[in-house]
Amino acid sequence: MFSSVDTIWVLLGAALVFFMQPGFCVLEVGLTRAKNAGNIIMKNLMDFSIGSVMFWIIGFGLMHGTDISGIIGTPDPFITGDYSGSFPSWAFVIFHTVFCATAATIVSGAMAERTKFSSYCIYSLILSAIIYPISGHWIWGGGWLSEMGFHDFAGSTAVHMVGGVAAFCGAKILGPRIGKYDKDGNARAIPGHNLTFAALGVFILWFAWFGFNGGSTTCATGDDSLASMGLIFVTTNIAAATGSITSMLFTWIKYGKPDVSMSLNGVLAGLVGITAGCDVVSPAGAFIIGLVCGLVCPIAVEFIDKKLKVDDPVGAVSVHGVCGAIGTIMVGLLATDGGLFYGGGTHFLAVQCIGVVSVIAWIAVTMTAVFLIIKHTIGIRVSEEEEIIGLDIMEHDLTSSYAGFETADRDLTTPEEAAAAKAIEISHSHYEGKMTNVSIVCNKTKLDVLKRELENIDIQGMSVTELQGCGVQKGKRQMYRGSEVGAVLLPKIRVDVVVSKVPVQTVVDAAHRALYTGASGDGKIFISDVENVVRISTGQQGTEALQYIEH
Amino acid sequence: MFSSVDTIWVLLGAALVFFMQPGFCVLEVGLTRAKNAGNIIMKNLMDFSIGSVMFWIIGFGLMHGTDISGIIGTPDPFITGDYSGSFPSWAFVIFHTVFCATAATIVSGAMAERTKFSSYCIYSLILSAIIYPISGHWIWGGGWLSEMGFHDFAGSTAVHMVGGVAAFCGAKILGPRIGKYDKDGNARAIPGHNLTFAALGVFILWFAWFGFNGGSTTCATGDDSLASMGLIFVTTNIAAATGSITSMLFTWIKYGKPDVSMSLNGVLAGLVGITAGCDVVSPAGAFIIGLVCGLVCPIAVEFIDKKLKVDDPVGAVSVHGVCGAIGTIMVGLLATDGGLFYGGGTHFLAVQCIGVVSVIAWIAVTMTAVFLIIKHTIGIRVSEEEEIIGLDIMEHDLTSSYAGFETADRDLTTPEEAAAAKAIEISHSHYEGKMTNVSIVCNKTKLDVLKRELENIDIQGMSVTELQGCGVQKGKRQMYRGSEVGAVLLPKIRVDVVVSKVPVQTVVDAAHRALYTGASGDGKIFISDVENVVRISTGQQGTEALQYIEH
Amino acid sequence: MFSSVDTIWVLLGAALVFFMQPGFCVLEVGLTRAKNAGNIIMKNLMDFSIGSVMFWIIGFGLMHGTDISGIIGTPDPFITGDYSGSFPSWAFVIFHTVFCATAATIVSGAMAERTKFSSYCIYSLILSAIIYPISGHWIWGGGWLSEMGFHDFAGSTAVHMVGGVAAFCGAKILGPRIGKYDKDGNARAIPGHNLTFAALGVFILWFAWFGFNGGSTTCATGDDSLASMGLIFVTTNIAAATGSITSMLFTWIKYGKPDVSMSLNGVLAGLVGITAGCDVVSPAGAFIIGLVCGLVCPIAVEFIDKKLKVDDPVGAVSVHGVCGAIGTIMVGLLATDGGLFYGGGTHFLAVQCIGVVSVIAWIAVTMTAVFLIIKHTIGIRVSEEEEIIGLDIMEHDLTSSYAGFETADRDLTTPEEAAAAKAIEISHSHYEGKMTNVSIVCNKTKLDVLKRELENIDIQGMSVTELQGCGVQKGKRQMYRGSEVGAVLLPKIRVDVVVSKVPVQTVVDAAHRALYTGASGDGKIFISDVENVVRISTGQQGTEALQYIEH
Repeated sequence: MFSSVDTIWVLLGAALVFFMQPGFCVLEVGLTRAKNAGNIIMKNLMDFSIGSVMFWIIGFGLMHGTDISGIIGTPDPFITGDYSGSFPSWAFVIFHTVFCATAATIVSGAMAERTKFSSYCIYSLILSAIIYPISGHWIWGGGWLSEMGFHDFAGSTAVHMVGGVAAFCGAKILGPRIGKYDKDGNARAIPGHNLTFAALGVFILWFAWFGFNGGSTTCATGDDSLASMGLIFVTTNIAAATGSITSMLFTWIKYGKPDVSMSLNGVLAGLVGITAGCDVVSPAGAFIIGLVCGLVCPIAVEFIDKKLKVDDPVGAVSVHGVCGAIGTIMVGLLATDGGLFYGGGTHFLAVQCIGVVSVIAWIAVTMTAVFLIIKHTIGIRVSEEEEIIGLDIMEHDLTSSYAGFETADRDLTTPEEAAAAKAIEISHSHYEGKMTNVSIVCNKTKLDVLKRELENIDIQGMSVTELQGCGVQKGKRQMYRGSEVGAVLLPKIRVDVVVSKVPVQTVVDAAHRALYTGASGDGKIFISDVENVVRISTGQQGTEALQYIEH
Repeated sequence: MFSSVDTIWVLLGAALVFFMQPGFCVLEVGLTRAKNAGNIIMKNLMDFSIGSVMFWIIGFGLMHGTDISGIIGTPDPFITGDYSGSFPSWAFVIFHTVFCATAATIVSGAMAERTKFSSYCIYSLILSAIIYPISGHWIWGGGWLSEMGFHDFAGSTAVHMVGGVAAFCGAKILGPRIGKYDKDGNARAIPGHNLTFAALGVFILWFAWFGFNGGSTTCATGDDSLASMGLIFVTTNIAAATGSITSMLFTWIKYGKPDVSMSLNGVLAGLVGITAGCDVVSPAGAFIIGLVCGLVCPIAVEFIDKKLKVDDPVGAVSVHGVCGAIGTIMVGLLATDGGLFYGGGTHFLAVQCIGVVSVIAWIAVTMTAVFLIIKHTIGIRVSEEEEIIGLDIMEHDLTSSYAGFETADRDLTTPEEAAAAKAIEISHSHYEGKMTNVSIVCNKTKLDVLKRELENIDIQGMSVTELQGCGVQKGKRQMYRGSEVGAVLLPKIRVDVVVSKVPVQTVVDAAHRALYTGASGDGKIFISDVENVVRISTGQQGTEALQYIEH
Repeated sequence: MFSSVDTIWVLLGAALVFFMQPGFCVLEVGLTRAKNAGNIIMKNLMDFSIGSVMFWIIGFGLMHGTDISGIIGTPDPFITGDYSGSFPSWAFVIFHTVFCATAATIVSGAMAERTKFSSYCIYSLILSAIIYPISGHWIWGGGWLSEMGFHDFAGSTAVHMVGGVAAFCGAKILGPRIGKYDKDGNARAIPGHNLTFAALGVFILWFAWFGFNGGSTTCATGDDSLASMGLIFVTTNIAAATGSITSMLFTWIKYGKPDVSMSLNGVLAGLVGITAGCDVVSPAGAFIIGLVCGLVCPIAVEFIDKKLKVDDPVGAVSVHGVCGAIGTIMVGLLATDGGLFYGGGTHFLAVQCIGVVSVIAWIAVTMTAVFLIIKHTIGIRVSEEEEIIGLDIMEHDLTSSYAGFETADRDLTTPEEAAAAKAIEISHSHYEGKMTNVSIVCNKTKLDVLKRELENIDIQGMSVTELQGCGVQKGKRQMYRGSEVGAVLLPKIRVDVVVSKVPVQTVVDAAHRALYTGASGDGKIFISDVENVVRISTGQQGTEALQYIEH
């Protein structure tokens, strides 16, 4: 006889945990660049979809099948066994399916903007099918850690730290995005393209977390369970709120301004931290966990970014990996029944540490192997060209996820990306929408040398206008017999070239070579946008009208 | 004595089904153009609002009132009867209200970007008040199909196919958007303006679907119901995941790249497909339904787009109509108790087919009539001018749903739209923000004829500059005695005109008439944006400064 | 012995009410300008986070602690007492925490785009810790209003009107945004930057409201409670739908077009209005409440905007304040048991009015005091410079919440903002991305005087080109012996200057002083965007390349 309330509670929890998917999706999209938005959507969609199917086919059995030596469950392909308790078997299955998919999805943020889509699908398949279920078995499937008394109520370790450590391995092996670090190794910020989506994602996750933690009682019967459910909602909420406030204050004090995306990360830090012990700590304990995680998270973000030089575009390693570990360990300190600070001795704390360390080891070793094998077979990273132009167009033939909007993502292109773009001579076709007028104003005497330099870089047309110009230096007006002389206009020329295939920087460099002496009359270069070009003789438009014609 | 758990379950289901509204809203907004975003929001808002009120006033009774000959329920205006079972009457009412509104909302996507707002409100009112309730009565209200044993658990047919068939009728009668098909009848892609919103919409729908299908047990008491609830969550999820993967693989194989928006459609295809049989198929059956729907959906999208030449901007007909029918029929094959593949014979399959065909007939006939009557009375489609400029400004006086962002929707204007715009001479006032500089570089000798052509098209000002120019053809440098000659600069003129009211294309055409010979020295036209113009004598700004002054 | 279903129902309600936070967040972000998006996110995040913690520390006790003279509850710092009923204590706590945070969040919309972030945090802390709990105690904590029989089921007054009145005080004391009113005091529209987010926010709120109102039974046991739950879902939905339709029709009739954002506001007006009486009015009563609120809301928006001249960017005062009061009072008319229209006499209506008036008085007095104290100590409003440039960059060092998108928020800058910007000479550094080319075409004879004027405004470079130009006045062509004479080209000059620090308007004014005679040959000024400038001698780029060089 199943319990109605238990079943409702578990299914409600499952639905809410599923709802983390759009949370992660818009969070990650928002914190990265517009040119990769479609690709990030696809990764989030596919890790959940592939994960759901693989967990059904193989993963579930490895996690919840009959225990074999405390290490692994007996495989149960397509789940034919009976796993019912006070609620039916399939309710149990869906509940664990959505947890599994959450772990997989965490990784996509850390590997964003440079991972090959096919490789990502393969990684995601392996994590969901084998790696997550095995450590999950240790913790929740009756394996050796659960036997030891390891307490990870809703998955600080089992879900979040697994995702966070895998994210670290992936980001490390991938290497940083082009231009994330300058030539001196200093980290450079690459801002995301939509902070409102990021905020919406965080709020969605916070909401869903009530299902993630609350639903993990998997029971809504009896005073203990019911009291626990109420407590979990409160501890979860206080840790999130405190995490957010703490991260905000930290950035306010350290950088002088309260940072928006760090405050959003602080929410998740608090939520990840409280997940292991949400049922056994007091609200005050939750406050402390929120405080610690909200403080550690921004420090970890900086440490990973600046010291370890691992490029994690959304902070997934810090939020899920670091705070997952901290939260799990802090249960050993703050559990009101058995925590060190409550007189519980060190044994429980030691067990928590053993759990964390062994799961880190498991994930680090297996995921490093997985990523390295992928790297050395089909390759894990897109080409430089694909990365610079964007994964949407290169991986998905999607010109833009925001058709009709003027995006200037190429202005967000890092200097290193620009340099690489020049070096590999990206086919102009990808820049179809973008043509630029470069006006070089200089002394008339420099026309010949400038023209030669421009020809050398394949400039295929120019126009030269005579004009008079001045570059007045205010405050340096000439005085003649005590009265000011107006700015003197000198004869100049303006050479206009419209380029598309040839990078603007190449034109600037050519002009520099031709004109540079270091004196203040060397001239100036004005760069502006051109909407369209038409070649009258052929009717060609756009970049085609700028191309060489074979006669 | 009502059941607490049944009531909670039904109300939770109702809330989740309501939540489909924002899902559909941002999905449809994301897959269409920015210039119509506000209009799409209004249609989604109004079909739910009008539908809710009409269903209360009249629809509910027609659907659930005492059966009359198996065809229709007894009207019960403002719902005064008692429809309670194990849960109270009003819980039953709200549950069916949100289902009704879902059917209405499906249509808005297929009719997007060209339907008159007032006509849409009227259609939506009629569907919710009369048409949906009648076929709904057949299936869920005790009518003739339910008597026959037709199984449509949560509405593949009753909700989705009804919406999809109505969508087809509407889109067909409306005709395609201007420029959707070129003059040879080839379909042209008109990309949506925000794929992140589209993805968020799909994830929201997936989440809400757990309420749509799960809640449809309308009972959370007893082992059978509870087991069913668990199963439904699993089958729903597997079909969605499989649909998504299948659609992705299909596009990957067929087009060489995994397509983002088709993969998102695949999720919905799987969800629509599983809705009829989510309670009676196994997870493996759900996998097959997901597979079939995920495969059929992109094929149907192409077929409707390219063969039937019906313009359905978001794929609503394929997703809801085609997959709704397929899913319903597949119950006859895959129901573990009674399906053909499980030895159940053909009778059940035949009933399923009869249900599908009869509902298609009902909706096709009535909705065609409704749309045709609307078309021939108040009109169903906005004017060409309104469509080109956008429904936000023309139907809602909303300059932009994205104020402050540079949108280039006019760049997304199809060639046909541009041509139509020229023909109907859209008042310049709508283009207030847009002025363009056209620079024509040509031989000096052509000045007179060019000037005359420009005067003929009402160009009201120009400036002429002498310059030297060249259009170097790289690789074709002149050689003189074995050494290369630099590009020769020839005397040229540049004629600049700034236009706003006069379309740029008109200027280009005029220049073409004046300058075209077909030889490579005909010249070039450079088009660029102008932010503002000031006429000094009057202080007029913007387009006004470009207008003719009456003396 | 706790009740499972009651606990589930309360916690589900709490989770849904929490979900209002993203609803408010994206609604407010969408209805304001892009340059303040990050700031609005932070305010929404912090009022919930700070509110959650403060309510735990102090607020909860003041609201729900043992009653002291009907005025206030006994403080219970960190909540150590037992507040359990049929569900556990902490479930009760979280339920009231999320309600409290809703009240605080309402205010952020009305004070958007000009409030100091630190001051906002302080206000929010005080409201959550003290002011909301005290009036909350009167209504829901066993205080004097509840003793009188005041009926505010889910918080039209206790939550929404509290927020709305506080919003009014805040917006009034802050004063309008720069340029909200022109020099004659006429209100000017400042459109929001993303209506899709606004719509998503409204739909999310509608969804969450099923938890807000439905969950407020805090009981899911017994036929009365269950019937009430069903009724509440229906009345809530009908009021929202009717509110939306009514607001739409009102704007359609009054302005000739159905207004999108007013229709969205109409949803919220209906929801706020029904909140007080959702359990005691019939669906027909809900329809009337929706009708009245949907009508009053747009009128109130205009009245507050145009008559009271209080600048409320999102309409929070009208939606939450005005409709909260109306909805509460209408319970006295429409309650099926005791309402005036149902023969219940005037006593109940009088009690409702007393409740509304006394809460308005309480909030107006205390919040005015709080805001005035903040104003005269740390200051409540950002500087003019911060407001014009945007709070994202000035308060949070966030260059843009939409990195990579071309936003033209400076085009949304009101004339007054532009004037103020000129007056306070905003450091050019904030405009780094923005350089503008101003081309002045005029008679050659005017060069000297123009040059002098430009030097006077610190123009640090110019180029002068000779050209031939005409400003043809179409229809005024010269006729010579009966045949038309083509436009005559006259010798002209074009003076180009590229500016960044110097405002474009200053250049236009200078040109006007130099060139204006009032005759039609005075010339024209063309303004266009420049992407970049390079000074060849130093390699400086961007605005730096335009600066004065010290020798």
